[in-house]
Amino acid sequence: MTTVRALAVVAMVGGLAWAQAGDKSTPATSNVPGAQYPRIQPDLGVTFRVNAPLAQKVQVKPGGDGLGKAPFDMVRDYQGVWTVTTPPAAPGFHYYFLLVDGFQCNDPGSQSYFGWNTETSGVEVPDRVDFYEAKEVPHGEVRARWYWSRTTGQWRRAQVYTPADYDTSGAKRYPVLYLQHGSGENETSWVKQGRVSFILDNLIAAKRAAPMIVVMENGMVAVKPGAAPVEAAGAGRGNSRNGAFEEVVMNDLIPMIDSTYRTVANREQRAIAGLSMGAGQAMQIGLSHLDKFAYIGSFSGGVRGTDPKTAYNGVFADAAAFQKKVKLLWLGAGIAEAASHQANQAWHETLEKAGIQNVFFECPFAHEWQTWRYDLQDFAPRLFR
Amino acid sequence: MTTVRALAVVAMVGGLAWAQAGDKSTPATSNVPGAQYPRIQPDLGVTFRVNAPLAQKVQVKPGGDGLGKAPFDMVRDYQGVWTVTTPPAAPGFHYYFLLVDGFQCNDPGSQSYFGWNTETSGVEVPDRVDFYEAKEVPHGEVRARWYWSRTTGQWRRAQVYTPADYDTSGAKRYPVLYLQHGSGENETSWVKQGRVSFILDNLIAAKRAAPMIVVMENGMVAVKPGAAPVEAAGAGRGNSRNGAFEEVVMNDLIPMIDSTYRTVANREQRAIAGLSMGAGQAMQIGLSHLDKFAYIGSFSGGVRGTDPKTAYNGVFADAAAFQKKVKLLWLGAGIAEAASHQANQAWHETLEKAGIQNVFFECPFAHEWQTWRYDLQDFAPRLFR
Repeated sequence: MTTVRALAVVAMVGGLAWAQAGDKSTPATSNVPGAQYPRIQPDLGVTFRVNAPLAQKVQVKPGGDGLGKAPFDMVRDYQGVWTVTTPPAAPGFHYYFLLVDGFQCNDPGSQSYFGWNTETSGVEVPDRVDFYEAKEVPHGEVRARWYWSRTTGQWRRAQVYTPADYDTSGAKRYPVLYLQHGSGENETSWVKQGRVSFILDNLIAAKRAAPMIVVMENGMVAVKPGAAPVEAAGAGRGNSRNGAFEEVVMNDLIPMIDSTYRTVANREQRAIAGLSMGAGQAMQIGLSHLDKFAYIGSFSGGVRGTDPKTAYNGVFADAAAFQKKVKLLWLGAGIAEAASHQANQAWHETLEKAGIQNVFFECPFAHEWQTWRYDLQDFAPRLFR
Repeated sequence: MTTVRALAVVAMVGGLAWAQAGDKSTPATSNVPGAQYPRIQPDLGVTFRVNAPLAQKVQVKPGGDGLGKAPFDMVRDYQGVWTVTTPPAAPGFHYYFLLVDGFQCNDPGSQSYFGWNTETSGVEVPDRVDFYEAKEVPHGEVRARWYWSRTTGQWRRAQVYTPADYDTSGAKRYPVLYLQHGSGENETSWVKQGRVSFILDNLIAAKRAAPMIVVMENGMVAVKPGAAPVEAAGAGRGNSRNGAFEEVVMNDLIPMIDSTYRTVANREQRAIAGLSMGAGQAMQIGLSHLDKFAYIGSFSGGVRGTDPKTAYNGVFADAAAFQKKVKLLWLGAGIAEAASHQANQAWHETLEKAGIQNVFFECPFAHEWQTWRYDLQDFAPRLFR
């Protein structure tokens, strides 16, 4: 018996689109509608293809560890179409750029994602889990909320996730998680790259997490009027592009959220977390304002200090007082981000020995969004219980 | 007397950022945070600058008439930084691309905007009006609303503008405007390029428009499961990439909106409008379902037919019956899109002579977003009165 394999016929889209007979690869879900490349291979290699007949050299430059470290050289065919397939990639979302004759730009086949301080390309590589996919459950909304910041003298935009029952639950009030992105990203990153709304929709529908509001703001850009910021991303204090971020959160954002949405406006119903730079901001802001927050999460964050008596301005020095106030201190890191994993694990153990209960969570991935999706999936169910 | 001019010192951002002494240009508001280029000159010329030392040729390719027709050649300096300043541009938002050794890609200095079926660069050139700016008025929200489409068998995302008082007005119910983008754009385009929320916020605050909900969906992508769409953008019917759009609107979107939001679910409180291809969809859907819509707006739309007795399936044949049902038929075009302007003006006059009252609105601009912002500013106040 011979097997007759149907020829896969794929519509032409944007000049880039065709697939070979018997090709079992599929367009990445992170593509713009109709774009056939990048494609995901059965072994999770990613095939990139662009049409650049006049270019001398075209490369794919990964913007995260899961796709590889060094640029991949693309190979030109006789018509000027350039192609490369990577080795099997890690599951999850990976930033990348094209280098076209050395010029760093985006792939026309990819949607844009804000990262690396600009719009980037990204490719979604499937995992064997579906906790961050849109499923047949009630869906919450993500609301773009403009508000005036007295601190920075500007209209700012927060992204606010409201759970599925928010508009139909009458006077019911909700706890709030403030959730921050990493360096170079913005308030859309947890929505687009992080899939925050689908993760919460699924957890809430399964009754694994309390219905909650999630607030995301831009932790990269927060300067006072007339200030001359230097080009550095700090933890939200001092003379950097985001030096006024802590003040924005405490003096503008939280009051606006509590007066605009049906929140429970007290510390026991308020959490703060973030990833990477945002983990630093969550620890800085949360630990400095234990009158406002009872839950703090650090996703792939740096560890500031080694001695619990003095680290973080001594907030851990009186373990009993800390324990009384903080319902959850949560540290997470990916195993493939070895230095962060090691530092956070050590800090977790140091804190435990000092009588500070805390959760240490690990997952297999790198310093990328797949780690932070898994983090949120573990962190959110522990809140507001 | 000599004038001592202070040296403008601008922080280095992304390797692209410096401004010359005495330069009165300013970064475009459409840039990513911190990006100093593109810059707007006092005469509304636009200065583009990118760093591409290894490229042989770099051009700026306009994606709309207001910036010019032909690509602008950029000039390389000895370090490989390429610059060009355009002649004075038309006010408003203009799509553009870079051509780097012929490869069409985006400018790292620009935010991304969905147009031309992909992510594009865009530059915002100031106008002498502020009706689409964020002002000190109550702001509504733009909500990303996921819902299941039975027609297409997929989760789809609508963008829903809710007016500022929506969450505090108790049981108050609102009329709904369905508002569509043009070919190659998507449900985010009226929000980002069109500034729909600021236009409505300002009109509602000034009591010039009734508080209303505005719903935007993706009119480019709507096919039934298993259908093999051809790559053509139609008016929402037939065998195209958006051939099932009318069914999505009528059978999935409107029922979802009316069951999810506090709408007044009748024809006298429901409007439909769109621009360019979306104008065709609005006329197609609106005129085919006068039991569902009492207000119809065509922004820079094509005109289908010349005889009111037969055009649009004869809906205008009985003028008295039409007049009784339709509270507003609104046609708009920019003077700088001469063919569209002429066709719509002629159609307006033909309809008037046939006893079909309708509004014809003109503004000075081309087939671009500035025209459609002006259109909405005139159209919205006429609704639901």
